[in-house]
Amino acid sequence: MGTKRVQRGKLLFLIPFIMTVLSSQNAIAQNHYMRIARVVIDSAQLENYKAALKEGMHAAVSKEPGVLRLSAVYDKEHPTHVTVFEIYASEDAYKLHIQTVHFKKYKEAVKNMVKSLELTDVLPIALESKTKE
Amino acid sequence: MGTKRVQRGKLLFLIPFIMTVLSSQNAIAQNHYMRIARVVIDSAQLENYKAALKEGMHAAVSKEPGVLRLSAVYDKEHPTHVTVFEIYASEDAYKLHIQTVHFKKYKEAVKNMVKSLELTDVLPIALESKTKE
Repeated sequence: MGTKRVQRGKLLFLIPFIMTVLSSQNAIAQNHYMRIARVVIDSAQLENYKAALKEGMHAAVSKEPGVLRLSAVYDKEHPTHVTVFEIYASEDAYKLHIQTVHFKKYKEAVKNMVKSLELTDVLPIALESKTKE
Repeated sequence: MGTKRVQRGKLLFLIPFIMTVLSSQNAIAQNHYMRIARVVIDSAQLENYKAALKEGMHAAVSKEPGVLRLSAVYDKEHPTHVTVFEIYASEDAYKLHIQTVHFKKYKEAVKNMVKSLELTDVLPIALESKTKE
């Protein structure tokens, strides 16, 4: 019994350590490359645009190690006004991103849906989250 | 030896379960209340504004269960243009937030620093992140 208790104690002790290692791999740091994209969409094609954006975002975050977070929203009062808040590990990670097959597929799919696109490079003041940043 | 191996196996099996429970407690769902605040700051008071914003954001996310994520950035080319992307658990959580001592302290501190403030309610299209959303 004594030996078993020690074994269990050792393993439980490891859990916080394992969790820290896993979450810090994906930590959002202050020195990442961040951008806000403001896009105005042709209202007739809004649902198609959302579907293409969703698909492209999912592929980017799941396949590319340097695409850390993409948050896409639309204005409640002006649903054709879309904002994407983008966080990449570095500017190089962003440059790799725009060369990927899924990004090119997204760009091709939406080329006649986008009425205007405004890209703004931003720098962090603070990132606070209940989830691990 | 056989028994010890079973004990260890049981505990290792629990780790993914424990991690899932812990991370899902703070999950960012599609039905939360989201907003983008665009603020233009008096350039002479920019550093003071950033300090007050940082302090207020940290207090809100650490003390209020309903304030899930606040991401504050400024435009690289126009550093007085600040954007805050805000995610609350619900509209009620936001209403509670603006009644807190730390929010009122922030509002009082920055009242002569803010040149303009534009608040836009937004709805999610997709939230993709390497960290658990």
